[in-house]
Amino acid sequence: MESTAAGISALAEEAKELQETAASLISRTTREEDALRQRVAAIDARINSLRSPLRGSKDFDKVEEELKRVRYILSEGDAAAFLPSKSHGMFLRMFLGPINVRANRKDVQLKVKEEYNNFRDRTAFLFLCLPSLLLILRSYIWGGCLPALPVQLYQAWLLYLYTGLALRENILRVNGSNIRPWWIKHHYFAMAMALISLTWEIDQGPDCAQKQARRMDVVWGETAGVEGQLLLLCPILFVLQGFEAYVGFLLLNTTMNGSKLDWQVITCGVLLIVMAVGNFVNTVQTLVRKSRVKAKIKRGKSRQELHQLNHGSDDKSS
Amino acid sequence: MESTAAGISALAEEAKELQETAASLISRTTREEDALRQRVAAIDARINSLRSPLRGSKDFDKVEEELKRVRYILSEGDAAAFLPSKSHGMFLRMFLGPINVRANRKDVQLKVKEEYNNFRDRTAFLFLCLPSLLLILRSYIWGGCLPALPVQLYQAWLLYLYTGLALRENILRVNGSNIRPWWIKHHYFAMAMALISLTWEIDQGPDCAQKQARRMDVVWGETAGVEGQLLLLCPILFVLQGFEAYVGFLLLNTTMNGSKLDWQVITCGVLLIVMAVGNFVNTVQTLVRKSRVKAKIKRGKSRQELHQLNHGSDDKSS
Repeated sequence: MESTAAGISALAEEAKELQETAASLISRTTREEDALRQRVAAIDARINSLRSPLRGSKDFDKVEEELKRVRYILSEGDAAAFLPSKSHGMFLRMFLGPINVRANRKDVQLKVKEEYNNFRDRTAFLFLCLPSLLLILRSYIWGGCLPALPVQLYQAWLLYLYTGLALRENILRVNGSNIRPWWIKHHYFAMAMALISLTWEIDQGPDCAQKQARRMDVVWGETAGVEGQLLLLCPILFVLQGFEAYVGFLLLNTTMNGSKLDWQVITCGVLLIVMAVGNFVNTVQTLVRKSRVKAKIKRGKSRQELHQLNHGSDDKSS
Repeated sequence: MESTAAGISALAEEAKELQETAASLISRTTREEDALRQRVAAIDARINSLRSPLRGSKDFDKVEEELKRVRYILSEGDAAAFLPSKSHGMFLRMFLGPINVRANRKDVQLKVKEEYNNFRDRTAFLFLCLPSLLLILRSYIWGGCLPALPVQLYQAWLLYLYTGLALRENILRVNGSNIRPWWIKHHYFAMAMALISLTWEIDQGPDCAQKQARRMDVVWGETAGVEGQLLLLCPILFVLQGFEAYVGFLLLNTTMNGSKLDWQVITCGVLLIVMAVGNFVNTVQTLVRKSRVKAKIKRGKSRQELHQLNHGSDDKSS
């Protein structure tokens, strides 16, 4: 018992010491990080101050490019963790509160991005398989009708999927990703649509097949916006986006002609058209930017070659 | 232009230096934190190793109490950030991926807890006001009927509320809160119920008032589990929990007798009964633990008083 008591008081001493070490480590780290944050913010401000007075002058492009290179050093290395943090945004605050989701270490940030890509690929597979399964079951088991429960389960899963994607994309943005804001907004719209379609009662009368096929179209048309690999599949994408808008107009048309005015149909129709237009505009913008970057690299290369040629002759002459 | 070029190359130099400072700060901090984490884990293991051989012996209670005090030093101060982290759990991984939501600094952790309390209070207010508003509008504006849209909007809000609460509670748990697992599970059930009630079509026939009143009961009965200030309101809580279970049985009874078998009604009935029983058991357990702690503190006090008396007489005799 004596030895236990001695052991305990030694433990208590050690715990106190650890506690003090932890407190001083945390306060020192916080202080050092704050100091570094200020220095990074200062250099960031100076980059911007060099840029603005030259706007419009003939040197602007050249200076701009060099400043971009300086900015790149800051934003791609470990210093990026100390750049002024992007606001967490309304969506994250709504679901998570004020918790910090920014990772300091570059390797952790990359792991987050990698996991996002895995999640998207995994769910894209389910996104295509589940409705296919529903359609197969409808034809071979359910005699041309879709029971409400499996469709609603799929819609609940879609709601989870879009919420998960929107949360992850917001977290990526905070961690320095340049994801286009539209793709995040697009997932907000998709969340709204999944929620609305959950409230949309499935007609179980004898004419179910005709009505429900249209219901499934909505889900299918939406595939257009979610597909991950955007740039590989441009022609397919444009066709799907056209189809998405077409289904939207079809839905609106139904309510115009029909006697029954379902708000869900109207809202889904409008949402589909908004998403189709937004997806189209953003896909085109991405393509244009990519081709500009390509052209710039090409120009840069030929300028470099010219430069090397000149230097080459210099070398020879010396 | 010359001065601009000189300015830019100075900036680039400084950016490189900042980048190196950032890299070394991050790697040094990581190293120091890892070392501290190992020391904290080691002392934690030694606390457990001292505890186990004494289990059952007469000294166990005394040693246990002293070890608890040592553990308290570790877990309530800054060293807590370096205790082995609780797993983030399935739910957070599903929605957020592998992002770290643990705050190192105690003041940040407290801020998270405070914001959670604010969120709960703010939403508890809406939780009571929104259905009251619906009931008032039903009586005075909608002539005894509830239109589907406002009810569904309220249900969608409930789904958001429970998702937000469950996410925040999981984050609190990771940050060292001792929240009872049941209350988190309870919010998973509530999420399921909100989702199910969204799919439950509202009867718009002439007998809507009678049918819909029951629908609203479900929402009302659920209030029992969400109420924040658990311990102040025991009698009210038990009555509400009884009411929750009663509504559950009522729903099951309806489907037994009725001709139409709605799966939503059965599931909601079962969920209500499960939640009522779970809430009751956990409220009682919390009460029992609280009264035990109180008794211990009382016992501790009287022992201390005895000790002081003895010491007092010792002092006098010396």
